[in-house]
Amino acid sequence: MIDFQTHPDEYHHWKLRIDDRVAYLDMAVDPGGGINPGYELKLNSYDLGVDIELADAVQRLRYEHPEVGAVVIGSLLDRMFCAGANIGMLATAPHPLKVNFCKFTNETRMAIEDATASSGQRYLAALGGNAAGGGYELALATDHIMLIDDRNAAVSLPEVPLLGVLPGTGGLTRLTDKRHVRRDRADVFCTLEEGMKGQKALEWRLVDELVPASSFVATVTERARAQAAMSDRPTDGTGVILPPLDRQIGDDEIVYSLVTVSIDRSKRVASLEIRGPEGSVPVDGDDAVASGAKFWPLRLARELDDAILHLRVNELEIGTIDIHSRGDIDMVLDYDAFLISMADHWFVREVLFHWGRVLRRVDMTARTVIALVEPGSCFAGFLAELVLAADRSYMLMGTWAGEGGNEARLGLTKANIHGYPMSNGLSRLETRFWGDAEGLTRAIAEIGRQSTAEEALAAGLVTDAMDDIDWEDELRIVHEERAAFSPDSLTGLEANLRFPGPETMETKIFGRLTAWQNWVFQRPNASGETGALRRYGTGIRPDYDHRRV
Amino acid sequence: MIDFQTHPDEYHHWKLRIDDRVAYLDMAVDPGGGINPGYELKLNSYDLGVDIELADAVQRLRYEHPEVGAVVIGSLLDRMFCAGANIGMLATAPHPLKVNFCKFTNETRMAIEDATASSGQRYLAALGGNAAGGGYELALATDHIMLIDDRNAAVSLPEVPLLGVLPGTGGLTRLTDKRHVRRDRADVFCTLEEGMKGQKALEWRLVDELVPASSFVATVTERARAQAAMSDRPTDGTGVILPPLDRQIGDDEIVYSLVTVSIDRSKRVASLEIRGPEGSVPVDGDDAVASGAKFWPLRLARELDDAILHLRVNELEIGTIDIHSRGDIDMVLDYDAFLISMADHWFVREVLFHWGRVLRRVDMTARTVIALVEPGSCFAGFLAELVLAADRSYMLMGTWAGEGGNEARLGLTKANIHGYPMSNGLSRLETRFWGDAEGLTRAIAEIGRQSTAEEALAAGLVTDAMDDIDWEDELRIVHEERAAFSPDSLTGLEANLRFPGPETMETKIFGRLTAWQNWVFQRPNASGETGALRRYGTGIRPDYDHRRV
Repeated sequence: MIDFQTHPDEYHHWKLRIDDRVAYLDMAVDPGGGINPGYELKLNSYDLGVDIELADAVQRLRYEHPEVGAVVIGSLLDRMFCAGANIGMLATAPHPLKVNFCKFTNETRMAIEDATASSGQRYLAALGGNAAGGGYELALATDHIMLIDDRNAAVSLPEVPLLGVLPGTGGLTRLTDKRHVRRDRADVFCTLEEGMKGQKALEWRLVDELVPASSFVATVTERARAQAAMSDRPTDGTGVILPPLDRQIGDDEIVYSLVTVSIDRSKRVASLEIRGPEGSVPVDGDDAVASGAKFWPLRLARELDDAILHLRVNELEIGTIDIHSRGDIDMVLDYDAFLISMADHWFVREVLFHWGRVLRRVDMTARTVIALVEPGSCFAGFLAELVLAADRSYMLMGTWAGEGGNEARLGLTKANIHGYPMSNGLSRLETRFWGDAEGLTRAIAEIGRQSTAEEALAAGLVTDAMDDIDWEDELRIVHEERAAFSPDSLTGLEANLRFPGPETMETKIFGRLTAWQNWVFQRPNASGETGALRRYGTGIRPDYDHRRV
Repeated sequence: MIDFQTHPDEYHHWKLRIDDRVAYLDMAVDPGGGINPGYELKLNSYDLGVDIELADAVQRLRYEHPEVGAVVIGSLLDRMFCAGANIGMLATAPHPLKVNFCKFTNETRMAIEDATASSGQRYLAALGGNAAGGGYELALATDHIMLIDDRNAAVSLPEVPLLGVLPGTGGLTRLTDKRHVRRDRADVFCTLEEGMKGQKALEWRLVDELVPASSFVATVTERARAQAAMSDRPTDGTGVILPPLDRQIGDDEIVYSLVTVSIDRSKRVASLEIRGPEGSVPVDGDDAVASGAKFWPLRLARELDDAILHLRVNELEIGTIDIHSRGDIDMVLDYDAFLISMADHWFVREVLFHWGRVLRRVDMTARTVIALVEPGSCFAGFLAELVLAADRSYMLMGTWAGEGGNEARLGLTKANIHGYPMSNGLSRLETRFWGDAEGLTRAIAEIGRQSTAEEALAAGLVTDAMDDIDWEDELRIVHEERAAFSPDSLTGLEANLRFPGPETMETKIFGRLTAWQNWVFQRPNASGETGALRRYGTGIRPDYDHRRV
């Protein structure tokens, strides 16, 4: 089992040091500390385990260190920033693990850009030595790349010439769309095994600054401090410590404090239940800080995120995730309003953006997601985003036979328009009604109404509504159908249908670039016995089928 | 060898009939007429050969029939419009052929949409029976889908449930981005083997109109005539007949009247030379019509297009295409200005749009394209687009040793900003300088100047400029490097770097959707011994590896 939970005290590969308002996150990968056996993590090369620690650090810095306004990613190795994804790992990992590895590392790089853009924690890369492949792609995720000018250190994307694969962790897209490197220069750069250094790297916009070796440390510190000084984060805030999750993992069940995952292996379905809040909404942001990691929306975000990651990586044969909720919908609405109205407070803002990332993680998860809106459920505001993120949603009309109580309600709020954009830059509601202004207007009219099944269906907010007589049979058919289909065709179907409308750098990375990388990974020229990944380091050149496709 | 040249008199699979201002293009696929042996084209299912005829018809209608303002795509089969791509063909075709087949059919569907959008020839689909898979995707490329309401005829995309692949000829993208079908409804529709018919198909926006069987023919005619009446095409124009190309195909050489392709198999390089005009520019559009298919820009467009298609499909191991030109640059500039200034004339407009499609075909070609700007070359205006379309471009400084004459010049014109948009909606110049306003301004300043190598290099218009001492060595190294790389990684690299900036439905289809389809095609669940494509029709269910990726 791959566990995404860790803590700085347990890091094997990173050193985190905080000096006033600047955090220094230094890579020092333990060669023997690979998450799987069979390869050595030499020269700060990385695998999923290294990236899990990085993601943890990025997350903790936001919550535990309100004072930090800039983060420097560096290296403790001499003359080497990072050699990129470990090739031994890429050569031996089965296809699903390779794809999951790339997806998670992409999400971590997006989280770095998100912190820079939204949270007042600007990331800088201090390249005191070579940054190759994924190492340079990590630097590309920061907003200021400083390269030591020692006639030696270079940045490079040697995937094509050396490995027969792509710079697939956003590298190709960030070159042209973020750094605006001319496409023919990007082509030249991506075919140079040795990469580029010095003045030419600067001139081609591959780095932002060249720094003499003698003043490297001082300049990095100076730049980071200047950035930190411009941050809007409080210098006197109390950090919110993220403790280990309250989590029990059984064979077919994972129980968190607010989330339960139940797995039916014969149906290949995971049922994921999230639970609403108990206790009332804090009076203000500082009051929310006082409740710390127990603040309901934060606790739920962390548990849901962990559950999704667990299913993605550790439960490959579970193809469908049913999402249920249970709780007091009015209290969820109170929390939803609190998050939006108090978003100026640094901690509340973090929770809001955290939900944005968790929801985008759901959008990017290669599993069929089905939302089930039942009596007693509490899909409202940001939780209603889960219904809109689902491939399909079903809502019960009336109540369960023999049970009284209230009917199911779906609670749209303003947050569903403005709070949680997808990676295409639109809300899930706008995406759902892309090109259909009338439909969008009808949906927006439901905001604030706590729609019944009939109303939600008429407004196009759910795929279908059924009474309790049909409910079980209909769902059984959906589950059986889904389990019978080719999982690959479902992945392709969902990856396309989930993103109508415009594209952004983020959707280009996850959609276009990733799809091409997955294709290349699957090709014998990369992963076959005589392919480049297998032959790398053997001294024997790969044996390519030269037919162009 | 697959030949892309054909003529209505030689069609095996389509009947073309013109009645006043409406063309009727009816599918009647010859089951025994497959382009390769080993499968039968039952029920109007198609292979590349069927689509080559369709593409020919679409092209001819534009040139040979100025009077035609609407085109109805229908079927001569009872109760069957089109069953989609032939599954036996998909099951047996090697991966490169499958990918090339999809790319060409996608381009043909884009040509249909282009005719509707730009040429006053609106396409309608008359579904007198079932439209399944690629059959429905063909209908989606038209702007008005009429479905017979006979309780039987349905539209469907059964690729996922039946074949374990995707509706990869634009289907998924057009559902959400063109017809604005809600994404969860699209998910439901794409998992229904039997598809949808009648009122529900209309309500879900899958078709535009339901027509009773009794009035089907009359209504189709009425709709088409109404569309034709709104066309801006001349009713009294003289058509320009497209004769067979002047083409000699040898083992390592193809010689057209204005294009020569020379293949060096040991280097895996094709050298493509295009030649400038002889004789002066026509005085006006009608004068251009008088020169017919010999009108230089038309003749060159047809020959270049054929050469590119030939290399794509028949020369899989040729990984690099060098583009040279030879001719009088001033005369090319005259023609370039003529095309832009006379674009209101139906025929000139057709030639302009034709070049747009040929250039986009180059953008979509999975080969490294290198443009070589040498003394005596004539890359100006629309021919300069080839330099901008190339992955790299090199320009000679000075003249060849021992030869006098003029230096090489590169001639940007206004056409390079407004004339020939890429599929991302931008000019190649805007794409090249995406996010770099200063660079774009510098490039635009070269318009009208006939830039020298030094000037073109300084303005960022070419990748590099070299004198004749370095020229041959540098190119040899580029060719050798390119030939040594994994062809798959080059395909992925180029498919990403060529499209910085925004995306459109067209780039989503060619980039995102196609990449996923290629990945799925490569997976054992689709193409393996026990995969869905191989097992289809055997009565044995496919045996899937259920791990989700």
